[in-house]
Amino acid sequence: MSRFLSPEALRLDPYTPGEQPRDQQYIKLNTNESPFPPSPKVLEALSRAEVEKLYLYSDPTCAALNAAIAGRYGLDPENVISGNGSDEILAFAFRAFCGEGKGAAFADITYGFYEAQAALFGLEAKRVPLREDFSLSVEDYLDFPGTVVIANPNAPTGMTVPVSDVRRLLERDPERVVIVDEAYVDFGAESCVPLVREYGNLLVTQTMSKSRSLAGGRVGFALGDRELIADLNRVKYSFNPYNVNRLSLLAGAAAVEDEAYFQACCRAVRENRAWTVEALERRGFTVLPSSANFIFAKPDRIPGGELYRRLKEKGILVRWFDKDRIRDFCRITIGSREQMEALTERIDRLLAGE
Amino acid sequence: MSRFLSPEALRLDPYTPGEQPRDQQYIKLNTNESPFPPSPKVLEALSRAEVEKLYLYSDPTCAALNAAIAGRYGLDPENVISGNGSDEILAFAFRAFCGEGKGAAFADITYGFYEAQAALFGLEAKRVPLREDFSLSVEDYLDFPGTVVIANPNAPTGMTVPVSDVRRLLERDPERVVIVDEAYVDFGAESCVPLVREYGNLLVTQTMSKSRSLAGGRVGFALGDRELIADLNRVKYSFNPYNVNRLSLLAGAAAVEDEAYFQACCRAVRENRAWTVEALERRGFTVLPSSANFIFAKPDRIPGGELYRRLKEKGILVRWFDKDRIRDFCRITIGSREQMEALTERIDRLLAGE
Repeated sequence: MSRFLSPEALRLDPYTPGEQPRDQQYIKLNTNESPFPPSPKVLEALSRAEVEKLYLYSDPTCAALNAAIAGRYGLDPENVISGNGSDEILAFAFRAFCGEGKGAAFADITYGFYEAQAALFGLEAKRVPLREDFSLSVEDYLDFPGTVVIANPNAPTGMTVPVSDVRRLLERDPERVVIVDEAYVDFGAESCVPLVREYGNLLVTQTMSKSRSLAGGRVGFALGDRELIADLNRVKYSFNPYNVNRLSLLAGAAAVEDEAYFQACCRAVRENRAWTVEALERRGFTVLPSSANFIFAKPDRIPGGELYRRLKEKGILVRWFDKDRIRDFCRITIGSREQMEALTERIDRLLAGE
Repeated sequence: MSRFLSPEALRLDPYTPGEQPRDQQYIKLNTNESPFPPSPKVLEALSRAEVEKLYLYSDPTCAALNAAIAGRYGLDPENVISGNGSDEILAFAFRAFCGEGKGAAFADITYGFYEAQAALFGLEAKRVPLREDFSLSVEDYLDFPGTVVIANPNAPTGMTVPVSDVRRLLERDPERVVIVDEAYVDFGAESCVPLVREYGNLLVTQTMSKSRSLAGGRVGFALGDRELIADLNRVKYSFNPYNVNRLSLLAGAAAVEDEAYFQACCRAVRENRAWTVEALERRGFTVLPSSANFIFAKPDRIPGGELYRRLKEKGILVRWFDKDRIRDFCRITIGSREQMEALTERIDRLLAGE
């Protein structure tokens, strides 16, 4: 760090993304990417003619992409904002709705980025412990006076919060914004999107990085009351008006429009998840109930950190968090059936002492 | 705005980008885009095989792109950070180096975004008036205790600051960061990049939106001492670790590697600029001395706002700022020769009373 760093920046708590080793021999089950390529419609959309147009700015209003998303979710384009991944949208929301005396509350075990972003804007962050079984108790948030952020399903556990609980939160204090981060919702959780028309204080964020196979395209979005969305745009136009590039605008719209491909990918992930959960449980693992494209699994014979390290030595990357309460677990992305078979075979050999 | 907007967000002063009308019939001379497509090497780099890989995250370290940029400028990769356009990098810099009691100073007439970003982080912004002739007096900044931001060449004037002036600023107070925004430097100004190795308090930002024909690809970067760059990464990893998407990483690297194409594009813009300046001066315009890919021009027979409106009616977009000191001017992007001929012909007809 330089001597120029401001005290505000010194207090930052940067997020550590999953490893991205250059050696492409790894089976990557550590960053919750889709194992499937983007929809063929995405490939069609990113034509040579479109690449040639890169000399022109992208549409700062993201009109075509927002319209496609709105159409898919039965909302109006004014209910949608698109971003350079949902991380960017979350940052906009922290700036828009939080400030001095109005912090953010989220689980002690959840997406590490909320913590990093709260620090970015100097916000007070309240970490609310999950229950012993890693489920979220909505009671703990009912009287929190700031913004509540709930990942549903949660990461790294994969566990869900019932929509009825979110509804209780929304109704308890209509003057408070509740952000539901649905990055993984398409793999089996119930979405809060149908509540958007009902509650002016609900913001739902989603991403195309997982269920729509566009992690490298960086397309996220949020759905909410048009006034909430206008607030987010106020931040966006103070930060980076052309926040989504031309090709990602096209890729995102094409991905949203290919419903059949999307459904097929989600179905395959759910099937591979069921297969993997059963396979690991048969090998003595404890696996939390997951509605996501990853599972959080605890081996019974070796520590979580050792499993992570020994799999990595053998070319399989999973994610391990050296953190209280979850040190015994590994987060394992659900890949293709072949990848999951390679994983279980490797685990068999580890457990056999190889 | 919603009732949930924080006081901090209420104080924001969002930037208004140039119009991007959908009607493609316009000759767009209002957002300083290149009139030329990206390098053929960019088209090659964005192959179908690469699009298929969009299901994988981009490299958060931007290693290959940073290495290409470092190579081009004779620096090390640790001297480089890449971003989703240089707007994003500028925001990182405001967060990294400014804070309470440590504001930012910039010209009263300059890129409107500095003002918006200072507000984003609640910073005190000192607007320092340019001289009557729109030149920048470095004396006015010598004793400013916060971060100094200088656009060189400046927008919307196109005028330059001598490198010797920047050097004076850097030396006067080595405890202060000086940011030189070189978005337009490739069209004829002297760059401060050679000073990067000499001064630990210099940060130079550049963009591929103009001279490298990648406005729609959103690739910007900053060059500076490795400690300054580490500070910016600290902010980046608190905001959006995967900030540059896969295709933009490839496009940026390919664009930087095609030096011949880059030089040819810059040369063509300079030639068209000289042609346009002469043509407008012959028609009674006052044109400020420009080293950018735009000119700031004042018609002598009609007000600037009227010129803007009448050109727009006839399908030519230029940019007009309804703002003190510059209300008489229009900012006109230098396009292709055909576009500039269409502009002057249209002006002839306007002046003839058509």
